[in-house]
Amino acid sequence: MSEARIWHGGDLDEARRLFPEAPEPWIDLSTGINPIPYPMPFLPASLFERLPSPAGHKDLEAAAAEAYGASDAATVVAAPGTQVLISLLPDLWTRSRVAILGPTYAEHAHAWHGAGHEVAEIGSTDGAGDADIVVVVNPNNPDGRMLRRGALLDIAGHLRQRGGWLVVDEAFADFAECETLAPVLPENVIVLRSFGKTYGLAGVRLGFAITADGFAEKLRKALGPWSVSGPAMEVGRRALRDRAWRRAALRARADDASRLDALLAPHSDRSPRGTILYRLMDSSRAPELFSHLGRHGIWIRRFQYDPRLLRFGLPGPEENWLRLERAFASFS
Amino acid sequence: MSEARIWHGGDLDEARRLFPEAPEPWIDLSTGINPIPYPMPFLPASLFERLPSPAGHKDLEAAAAEAYGASDAATVVAAPGTQVLISLLPDLWTRSRVAILGPTYAEHAHAWHGAGHEVAEIGSTDGAGDADIVVVVNPNNPDGRMLRRGALLDIAGHLRQRGGWLVVDEAFADFAECETLAPVLPENVIVLRSFGKTYGLAGVRLGFAITADGFAEKLRKALGPWSVSGPAMEVGRRALRDRAWRRAALRARADDASRLDALLAPHSDRSPRGTILYRLMDSSRAPELFSHLGRHGIWIRRFQYDPRLLRFGLPGPEENWLRLERAFASFS
Repeated sequence: MSEARIWHGGDLDEARRLFPEAPEPWIDLSTGINPIPYPMPFLPASLFERLPSPAGHKDLEAAAAEAYGASDAATVVAAPGTQVLISLLPDLWTRSRVAILGPTYAEHAHAWHGAGHEVAEIGSTDGAGDADIVVVVNPNNPDGRMLRRGALLDIAGHLRQRGGWLVVDEAFADFAECETLAPVLPENVIVLRSFGKTYGLAGVRLGFAITADGFAEKLRKALGPWSVSGPAMEVGRRALRDRAWRRAALRARADDASRLDALLAPHSDRSPRGTILYRLMDSSRAPELFSHLGRHGIWIRRFQYDPRLLRFGLPGPEENWLRLERAFASFS
Repeated sequence: MSEARIWHGGDLDEARRLFPEAPEPWIDLSTGINPIPYPMPFLPASLFERLPSPAGHKDLEAAAAEAYGASDAATVVAAPGTQVLISLLPDLWTRSRVAILGPTYAEHAHAWHGAGHEVAEIGSTDGAGDADIVVVVNPNNPDGRMLRRGALLDIAGHLRQRGGWLVVDEAFADFAECETLAPVLPENVIVLRSFGKTYGLAGVRLGFAITADGFAEKLRKALGPWSVSGPAMEVGRRALRDRAWRRAALRARADDASRLDALLAPHSDRSPRGTILYRLMDSSRAPELFSHLGRHGIWIRRFQYDPRLLRFGLPGPEENWLRLERAFASFS
């Protein structure tokens, strides 16, 4: 696998370099982050000043266990973002064979490869062969492909027979009809959940691993105490327990996804797919559309491995929808 | 080395369990965190909502390089607190012999031991023997012992001959007459710097490793992108460039440390020592004093390895000084 720089969403500095003449402010549709964030609570100064309290950290993990349907808060490990978990996991194994169901979020392959493991991208789970570790993003980013719980449990079962592990990155599962493994949790499975995407708070850095006690303890050791900031702890505890907000957000963002599909479909070679927080379109004219939108100050996500793909996040405020609609109207 | 639970400062939940009748609010003198914090700047919502920008992250590392006297920002790796660096470092080596100059901050031994290394505490650097990795906290926590730059360079030189590494935790170096290794940085040295202690912002989680490019890259990989939150990035960039604040804080806290010493000295068997942010006293009556202050709602730091030691952080606001002084006046 290539060690070239990975393209990520969310980097408007890069947008400005590519399209220096584009109108400001940029509309950033390059991520899959909920554009209507959970309202930040008042943050007392003590959250910034004091070491985050161990009791608060535990309560955050309890709130996550409830939200994700994990049976035991001891299986939940809070971290400063899911990304740091993705990045440090490979350091916890000696050289292994890793199969990643792809194409998918590139940081998985990058992290395992960077730590010296043998990494193969597989197009279907049948290709896992004798891998020691299998990585599945479910639902998948960027195409929204979902694996059923039964299929994942089968893979975990096969892996367990040879001491192998299954990593399931459920970063986009909150808003998907996705069969999470959190409530069943075989002993050789690591589930990753992202806070920032669902709650529109990617800057606070908060994410979780859900895994059996023994490995959870290993992850806690790798992160050490106080890994989650005071502000992240505070908003995380509240937001994860706010089921009414999550239900309303799911409905509203599902409507947004339909509205976005209506805009993309006329320019797509097949129906747009993905999750509620991002839509993927296939088009032979993708590079032109990327440049056209860029010149209009709209930053979307393209993919190194397939120039026909473009991924759109949700626009959020109505003024952003209008700018996007106007830009599409002038694309011909 | 024991795997028992490590005692830490900053946990008022523990204080309340031990002294349920103590008056609130507690005065927490159990940490070495500056009690007069750097003023938090206005934090726009976008810092919480958007992924932290790669350019901002680089600028944060540049600000840290200037503040710490590192010659090249590429040698500086920002992290969500120094603790996560301490905790994940041991996962980057295969089983090694680790010598830690002690007694010192217990998380170092805990982390190396927990990752399966062979850990020995040494009382002087002469005892390093044929260790692969030597860990020195400079100035030391809790006793303030300082090693000269020349002595540290000697150790690094010896280690380099056999492919070994020196870790220097300079968590309390900002306010000490300490000869930091950041500006000279031999290729097999990792310097750790803490942001939260000096700036009184332990809740934001921000710390740095300073190490040669190759190993810095390895650490960046272990943390992944966006490891530092938006709010931490914002306040870090400002505060690290605010030399006037740091100079004034150093003077004010040095005065505080003298005032604290005057209070401790009559009860101490030797002169109080430590750094400007904490003072260590030796007393045969330490356990009684700990309980006496606890009953008055004042939480200080005791040590598992020596019941004669107590460490005091600085009280901060004048009302806290007065409560501390009154509590000492009633100790007989």
